[in-house]
Amino acid sequence: MSKIKKIAVFTSGGDAPGMNACIRAVVRTALHFGCEVAGIKQGYQGMIDNNITEMSRHSVSNIMQLGGTILKTARCLDFRTPEGMQKAYDNLKLNGIDALVAIGGDGTFTGAERFSGIYNIPVICVPGTIDNDLYGSDFTLGFDTATNTVIEAIDKIRDTAESHDRLFFIEVMGRDAGCIALRAGIASGAEAIMMPEKDTAIIDLIKTLEEGAAQKKSSSIVIVAEGDKNGGAFNVAKKVKETFDFYDTKVTILGHLQRGGSPSSFDRILGCRMGFAAVKALLRGETRKMVGLRSNEIKLTDLKEALTDHEFKLEEDLLEMATILA
Amino acid sequence: MSKIKKIAVFTSGGDAPGMNACIRAVVRTALHFGCEVAGIKQGYQGMIDNNITEMSRHSVSNIMQLGGTILKTARCLDFRTPEGMQKAYDNLKLNGIDALVAIGGDGTFTGAERFSGIYNIPVICVPGTIDNDLYGSDFTLGFDTATNTVIEAIDKIRDTAESHDRLFFIEVMGRDAGCIALRAGIASGAEAIMMPEKDTAIIDLIKTLEEGAAQKKSSSIVIVAEGDKNGGAFNVAKKVKETFDFYDTKVTILGHLQRGGSPSSFDRILGCRMGFAAVKALLRGETRKMVGLRSNEIKLTDLKEALTDHEFKLEEDLLEMATILA
Amino acid sequence: MSKIKKIAVFTSGGDAPGMNACIRAVVRTALHFGCEVAGIKQGYQGMIDNNITEMSRHSVSNIMQLGGTILKTARCLDFRTPEGMQKAYDNLKLNGIDALVAIGGDGTFTGAERFSGIYNIPVICVPGTIDNDLYGSDFTLGFDTATNTVIEAIDKIRDTAESHDRLFFIEVMGRDAGCIALRAGIASGAEAIMMPEKDTAIIDLIKTLEEGAAQKKSSSIVIVAEGDKNGGAFNVAKKVKETFDFYDTKVTILGHLQRGGSPSSFDRILGCRMGFAAVKALLRGETRKMVGLRSNEIKLTDLKEALTDHEFKLEEDLLEMATILA
Amino acid sequence: MSKIKKIAVFTSGGDAPGMNACIRAVVRTALHFGCEVAGIKQGYQGMIDNNITEMSRHSVSNIMQLGGTILKTARCLDFRTPEGMQKAYDNLKLNGIDALVAIGGDGTFTGAERFSGIYNIPVICVPGTIDNDLYGSDFTLGFDTATNTVIEAIDKIRDTAESHDRLFFIEVMGRDAGCIALRAGIASGAEAIMMPEKDTAIIDLIKTLEEGAAQKKSSSIVIVAEGDKNGGAFNVAKKVKETFDFYDTKVTILGHLQRGGSPSSFDRILGCRMGFAAVKALLRGETRKMVGLRSNEIKLTDLKEALTDHEFKLEEDLLEMATILA
Repeated sequence: MSKIKKIAVFTSGGDAPGMNACIRAVVRTALHFGCEVAGIKQGYQGMIDNNITEMSRHSVSNIMQLGGTILKTARCLDFRTPEGMQKAYDNLKLNGIDALVAIGGDGTFTGAERFSGIYNIPVICVPGTIDNDLYGSDFTLGFDTATNTVIEAIDKIRDTAESHDRLFFIEVMGRDAGCIALRAGIASGAEAIMMPEKDTAIIDLIKTLEEGAAQKKSSSIVIVAEGDKNGGAFNVAKKVKETFDFYDTKVTILGHLQRGGSPSSFDRILGCRMGFAAVKALLRGETRKMVGLRSNEIKLTDLKEALTDHEFKLEEDLLEMATILA
Repeated sequence: MSKIKKIAVFTSGGDAPGMNACIRAVVRTALHFGCEVAGIKQGYQGMIDNNITEMSRHSVSNIMQLGGTILKTARCLDFRTPEGMQKAYDNLKLNGIDALVAIGGDGTFTGAERFSGIYNIPVICVPGTIDNDLYGSDFTLGFDTATNTVIEAIDKIRDTAESHDRLFFIEVMGRDAGCIALRAGIASGAEAIMMPEKDTAIIDLIKTLEEGAAQKKSSSIVIVAEGDKNGGAFNVAKKVKETFDFYDTKVTILGHLQRGGSPSSFDRILGCRMGFAAVKALLRGETRKMVGLRSNEIKLTDLKEALTDHEFKLEEDLLEMATILA
Repeated sequence: MSKIKKIAVFTSGGDAPGMNACIRAVVRTALHFGCEVAGIKQGYQGMIDNNITEMSRHSVSNIMQLGGTILKTARCLDFRTPEGMQKAYDNLKLNGIDALVAIGGDGTFTGAERFSGIYNIPVICVPGTIDNDLYGSDFTLGFDTATNTVIEAIDKIRDTAESHDRLFFIEVMGRDAGCIALRAGIASGAEAIMMPEKDTAIIDLIKTLEEGAAQKKSSSIVIVAEGDKNGGAFNVAKKVKETFDFYDTKVTILGHLQRGGSPSSFDRILGCRMGFAAVKALLRGETRKMVGLRSNEIKLTDLKEALTDHEFKLEEDLLEMATILA
Repeated sequence: MSKIKKIAVFTSGGDAPGMNACIRAVVRTALHFGCEVAGIKQGYQGMIDNNITEMSRHSVSNIMQLGGTILKTARCLDFRTPEGMQKAYDNLKLNGIDALVAIGGDGTFTGAERFSGIYNIPVICVPGTIDNDLYGSDFTLGFDTATNTVIEAIDKIRDTAESHDRLFFIEVMGRDAGCIALRAGIASGAEAIMMPEKDTAIIDLIKTLEEGAAQKKSSSIVIVAEGDKNGGAFNVAKKVKETFDFYDTKVTILGHLQRGGSPSSFDRILGCRMGFAAVKALLRGETRKMVGLRSNEIKLTDLKEALTDHEFKLEEDLLEMATILA
C-alpha cells in the first residue's frame, strides 16, 4: 500500500497548452484519494528556491481553458549540479513532499530520472510539449492545439493567397522534429513541406513550385520547420527568389504564438487523463515512469526506456500523402 | 490486380466536419493512381437521380478548410426499395463507375453493404459522423471538431457564469451516445453530465449541485445530451427548478452549430488518411470494409462486423474522472 | 481643481465583454493621476455588504482578454430602499471613497443617478451591455463581441444548412431591442429577421421563405430575437411547421454564450477609452454623466437625458438592406 | 433620373476582409433596382484583359463569411498608360457597362478618378484596406478584422510570455500608418508600440522595458509596425539585445495572415452598407465620390478631396492611453 501523503506537481521546459488541465487533474485526483498537494513554481528552479505553494480544489478552478501554465516554467542550470539537487531535495522534505508529478519534455524527464534515482523519491512524468517528439505516447500534450493554431494561421494566409497569386513561406516550430510542419502542411493543403527529417534541396522545391504553376495553381504555400537544413523561412524564400523570379514572395514567422491559446478539447482531455493516471500510478507504488496515450488508452513507459535514443519516425502514410494530395 | 477505372465518392446521412478533406483525398489519390473519379451529389438520392459529376484535382482545391460537404447529403427512402437500388446501379453503369467510397454513419454503411452484395460493386466506407459511435475506429470524422465547438461555447458561458452565480443547462448532440457530452463535459469542467448511457435521476443531479453550492462554487454548468432520459435541457432545467429554488437557471440549445465549422487539424488529417486509405484498399481489391483509426494507424474492418450490434462503451477513466475532477 | 482622492469602480447588471478592459483603464488612469482606486465586488450588493477591495496596477494585469468581469455583477433589490442606500454610502465613507465609476446598463444608471443626487457623490457611468440599446453612445460595451459571437455560430449552422436543405431558427438575445438580431442577421445573410421593433406575422415569414424556395435557395436561416412578439424561436418554428410542411426545421437557442468570450478589439478599445475618459471626467469635476462613443470620439451625456424615454431607432439603411440583400 | 443599365464591380490593390460582403451588396442592390451587374476579375488588369463575368444573385451566395475577394485583385501597371486605359474602356463598352464600383485603397481611387475623368464613366469608390489610412471614413473595410486577428495572436503569445519571463517582438502591418499597431497594442496591453508616426529611439524603448522590469512585470510585449523607422521587429530585437541582456527575446512576423480570415461582424456590416450606398449613389447620378462611414452613417466624399494630402492623425486619446495603461 502506498504511504504517499503529499504530492507536488510542476511544469518545466517550454510550456504547452493543456498543462493547466493536467495540473488541475493532479491536484483534484490527489485530494480525492486523500493526499495533500503542493505546486512548485517555475519547475526545478522553484524547487531550489523553495517557491512552493499549497494547492486546493479551488486553486485550480477555472484554469482548464487557459493557455500556458499557472505554475510557470523556467530553464534551470543549477539543478544539474549536486548542490542544486540537494537544495531541491531539502526543500521537498521541508514541505513534506513524498512524490512528484513532472510535466515537460525530455530535459524535464532526464532531470526527474536522475533526481529520483539519487534521492529515492517517486516520480511520474507527463509528456508536455508541442513538438510531439517523445517516445511512449502517440501524442504529447499541446501538439494538437499547436497544430490547430498553425492551420488557422495558414487558412488566413490562403484567403489572401487565393486573391493574389503569390508564394508564401511560413515558418513553424520544430527544431528537431517535423511533426507540426507535416501535419499542419497536410491539413492546410500546403504545396511543399520542409522538415528536419527530410533534406529538401532548394532545386527540388523549385521544381515542385514550377509543376504547381504549370497546373495553374493560383497560389502556393510552403511550410518551413525552423529546424529545416536550409535555415528557416527567410533563407528559403531568399534562395527561391534568386532563381524563381515569377512570384512575389512573402514570409510569416509564427513564432511563439504556436505555444499559446486555449487548449483544444483533445489536449484538455489528454491533460486530464495523464494527470489522473499519474497520481493513480504514484499511489499504487509506481515510479520513474512516464504516462502516455497509446491506442486511445493510457499506458506507462519506463523513463529509462523513454529516454533511450529511439529513431523517431513520422507516419509513413502522412509522408506519402504530403506529396500526393498537395 | 485491380481493374477499377472509375471510383465514385459520396457523403450521406448527417454531415460532419472533415468530410471535404476526405472527398479531396479520395479524388486526388484516385487520380494519382490513374483512376477517374466521379462525385455523387446528395448521397443515395443523387445516385438514383443521376446527380453525378466528374471530379478533377482542381474541383477539390481549397475545400479542406470548409465545414459541411461540397457533395451535400440527403436522407433517401427510395434506396431501400429494389427499384431505387436498380435505378442507382443503372446510373453508376451509365457513368462507368466501378467502385464506391461512401462517407457517413451506420445508415450509410447498411445501404452500402446491401447494395454492394446485390450488385457486386466494390465499396469502402468511411466513418463520418460527429457522434463517435461507430465500431472499428477510435474516432469518427467530425467528432473532434464538434467537441471543440462545444467547449468553446461552454467556455463563453463559463465567463458569464463566473460573473453571475447562476446555473446553466447546455444541450449537446447525442441521441444514443454520450461521447460529445462526456468529453466536452470533462474538457469544460462541467459540474454534471447527463448522458443516454447513464440514467441520472434529477434527485441525484440536485444533490451534486447542492454539494457544489456547499463548496461555494460560484456557478454550475450541467451538460445534457439530447438523448438523456429526462428529455433534454429544458425539461431538466424545469425539473431542477421545481425543487431547487436558489439558482437562476438558463438554458442553451447548441443544436446544429455543432455540425459545422472549419474542421480541426485532427479531423482534416483523419479525413485525408481515411480517404487515401479507402482508395488504396479499393485498388488492391478490398470491398465491403470500413476504414478506421486504431492506435494512430488506419485499419480495415468488415462492414458486417462493424454493423453487428456491439456494446458501445465510453472510456472507463473518462467516466471516473467526470465526477472526481468536476 | 478636483479634490478626489479615491475612486471606486464596479460593474452591475448583465455582464458584457469589454468590462475588464474598462476596469483596467479606470484603475490605471486613476493611479496615473495620483488617485487611489477601490473595486466593489458584485455591484450595488457589494457596496451594501462592504465587499470592497483595493486595486493596484498589478491587480488588473492580464485581464483585458478575459470575458465577464473580474468584479462580478449581481442584481440588488436592497439598493432601491433608503436603508440600502444609506448602508452603501456608509461603506463608501468607511473606505474613503470620493467618487464612482459605474459600468452597466440603464438599471445601473438609474441607481447611480439617484444615489449621486441624494449623497452628493460624483459618479460617471459607462454603458456596458451587449444589447446596444442605450442613448448617448453609438455602441455599448460588449455589443461588437456579442454580434461576432452570433455570426460565428450562424456561419457554422450555414455549413450544415448548405449540406442539407433545411430551415433553421436561431434565437438571439434582445428582449426589447433587435440590434443584435438585425446586425447579426445581415452579417450572416439570414433569410429573415424577427425583432421586437418589427411585428412580423408568421404568414409574412412563410411568404418570404416560399419566395426563397422558389429561388432555389438550398437552405434558410431565420433569426429570432428573444423579444419577438411570436414568442421565441421554438414557437416560431412550431407555427411555421404547421403550415409549411416542406422543410425539416431545427432550432438553436444561443442563450448566455452571447454574453461571454474574449472581447473583440473594438470592445477592448472602447472599454479602455471609456474607462480612461470616465476618470478624467471625474477629475475635472464632472458628475452624473455617462461617457459614450459618438463619431469615433468620446462624448459626455447627462444621465438625466440618457435616462429620458428616447425613441430608439434601428439604422434605416440596415433595415432596408435586411430584405434587399437577403 | 439615372439611365444606368449595367454596373461593374471590382476589387483592386491589397485584399481585405469584408470585400466579399461589399461585392455581394453591390450585386444584389443593383439587381434589386433593375440594373444588370458584371464582375471584373483582378481589378484593372481584368478590365484590360476583358476578364469580365455576369453576376447573378446566386453568384454571390454564401460568400459573405469568406476572407479575400472572389473577384481577386492584381497590381496593374498597364492601366497607367493611355493605351491600357483605352483597352479597359473598350472592354467596358463591349460588355455594356455604364458605371463602376471600385473597392480598394488610394492607388485604386487614383486610377478610378483619372479614368472616370477621361472617359466620363460614373464611378463610386469603396475604401477597402486593412490599414485604415484613408481620408473620409472613420474605418476602412478590413481594419476591424485585421485588428482582431492581431490581438488574437498576441493573446496567444501572452499565454506563453506569462509562463516564461521573456521579451517578445511582434511585427504587424502598417508601412505608413500605425493604426493597426496602435489599436492592437492597446487592446492587447503591449508594453511598447513602435509606429511610423512616432520616432521611438531604441534607448527610450529600453528605458520603458527597464521600468517594466522594475515593476516586476513577468513579461513584455513590443509591437513593431513594419514601417517603424528602426527597420522591423528583427532589427529592433537585435538592437535591444545588444544593450539589454537580461531577457530572452523572441520575434514573430505576422505577415499576410493579417489580411485573411473570416470578416468580423463590423466589417461585414460595413461592406454591406458601403456596397449598398455605392449603388444607390450611382443610381441617383453621383460620380467620382467615395463612400465612407462617419458617425455611424454613410457619407460621400469627393475623390479629389479624399486624394488630397491630408495630415493623417491617430486618435489623441489612444496615443495618451498607450503609455498610461500599458
